[in-house]
Amino acid sequence: MSLPLEEIQREFLAQLIERRLLIPSGVDGIYGHGHWFETVCERIDAFVTRVGKDDGAEYLRFPPVVTQRNYELSEHLESFPDLVGVVHGFRGTEKDHHALVARQKAGEDWTQGLRATGVVLTPAACYPIYPTLKGRLPHEGKRIDVQSYCFRYEPSKDPARMQSFRQREHVRIGRPEEVREFRDLWQRRGEEMLKALQLDCWVDLANDPFFGRAGKMLVANQREQNLKFELLVPITSREKPTACVSFNYHQDHFGQLFGIELAEGGWAHTACVGFGLERITLGLFRQHGLDIKDWPAPTRETLGL
Amino acid sequence: MSLPLEEIQREFLAQLIERRLLIPSGVDGIYGHGHWFETVCERIDAFVTRVGKDDGAEYLRFPPVVTQRNYELSEHLESFPDLVGVVHGFRGTEKDHHALVARQKAGEDWTQGLRATGVVLTPAACYPIYPTLKGRLPHEGKRIDVQSYCFRYEPSKDPARMQSFRQREHVRIGRPEEVREFRDLWQRRGEEMLKALQLDCWVDLANDPFFGRAGKMLVANQREQNLKFELLVPITSREKPTACVSFNYHQDHFGQLFGIELAEGGWAHTACVGFGLERITLGLFRQHGLDIKDWPAPTRETLGL
Repeated sequence: MSLPLEEIQREFLAQLIERRLLIPSGVDGIYGHGHWFETVCERIDAFVTRVGKDDGAEYLRFPPVVTQRNYELSEHLESFPDLVGVVHGFRGTEKDHHALVARQKAGEDWTQGLRATGVVLTPAACYPIYPTLKGRLPHEGKRIDVQSYCFRYEPSKDPARMQSFRQREHVRIGRPEEVREFRDLWQRRGEEMLKALQLDCWVDLANDPFFGRAGKMLVANQREQNLKFELLVPITSREKPTACVSFNYHQDHFGQLFGIELAEGGWAHTACVGFGLERITLGLFRQHGLDIKDWPAPTRETLGL
Repeated sequence: MSLPLEEIQREFLAQLIERRLLIPSGVDGIYGHGHWFETVCERIDAFVTRVGKDDGAEYLRFPPVVTQRNYELSEHLESFPDLVGVVHGFRGTEKDHHALVARQKAGEDWTQGLRATGVVLTPAACYPIYPTLKGRLPHEGKRIDVQSYCFRYEPSKDPARMQSFRQREHVRIGRPEEVREFRDLWQRRGEEMLKALQLDCWVDLANDPFFGRAGKMLVANQREQNLKFELLVPITSREKPTACVSFNYHQDHFGQLFGIELAEGGWAHTACVGFGLERITLGLFRQHGLDIKDWPAPTRETLGL
């Protein structure tokens, strides 16, 4: 009889912690990274750099927060309200401060009097880009290379479902055919890359966790139109594999929302490919073993380990 | 007649944006980093790695959030309540969600019904470490190497006062004399490093922005006991230079709060050295010019540029 999935996930997490690959924080889904775990994440990041190096993408890096204004414009709150992380802060007098600390010391909830600061944790690495592109694109459109910590409020015992994690993304902004071509190119590249790492994986249509009943229609629409694909890697389960790379064609969703126009007029289309650095790393430690010395030679070679 | 400082800062920020070194977000103190800005940050990070490489520090990396529980234990809320960023999230039914989105669409404050998620933005890169060290240290104590995004809720037009920025830190945990020795060693190293980058800079006692009247006593105490020093770099002003590296001896503050004991008993002492990656980068662009090609040869050589 096989163990229930939760048991398997818990056991894998315990092994990762025991080997000091992950450092527990006391909150599910928030972990420090030990030396080897982080080193593998960095090497995967560098691998993406190598594969995309001749594309001419602009290298930009953003902090792990976006502005509340841009978050609101993105319509993320409509689809994924249960994942958002809004940053709240304190403004007040010394008296207010004394009351705040007193509540904290008494074990009461001191966080309810705080107010939104104007920033929200980044939901996906490409979100900060679109607002910066308002207006006319150059004729050739844009290619952008980003990486940042992202946040999703979904505490879980599954080590592959972290609340704070990094996405490395390449983003294409341009005409529909250019953007689809980009997505298809990276889908081929992504598969080749995970194969080079000797990871068992396959492509499937994505199943985004849109919220509520209206969300069920959105996900059906996304699947029907073949908009988003994922590279799935079995980590703790073959039946419920983990999306480690995603290929997402947004049509003119962000173009319209943020006023991004093609050189010849009309809303720009966008697509992104996102590599989940921690998830691919977890796939490697799960499929090849907890000791990097035991990994297949081609995997180690590809990552320079 | 010289321009008021705010005017100078605004002008410098405008230049950085024009050269696509910083990308504005619409919120003061939140910027994307253009290719060259980020590259310089990365090279400074690598320089710290080189200088500390034989110290035997454990390489750990943490996400940009700490747990609320550990944040509370750190007593940061007592001293710096106006800097904290608490992450709030949504839990509710579809009806609650409809109401939330309706408030947002109507331009009302939709953030007040949210609740704390259990995580807080990291105030300083070394904060996640201390809670993991509860218990007895090995005889030789500990040395840890961290880097992460940190958050301070202080919107400002001064590009050197970002709200979201990175600190690279080395941390020593051990006996008082070991810890003081570490701090003094890094203070010498820090000065030599900025000199190697040809940065005009000097060391001074730190002036932390403790909150309120009680805070004034804390800062006086910190200065009186020579606990924290800073390497100051004139960026937009010589009279109000910017702290780019800090050397902080915490005595047994964190040892006591988080129950970290020496091998022979007694609370461990701690010290950290923190390099502000964005601030040093800004110092370089300010003192050496906005075009890296114009930088002094030794600076470019040191950073491999």
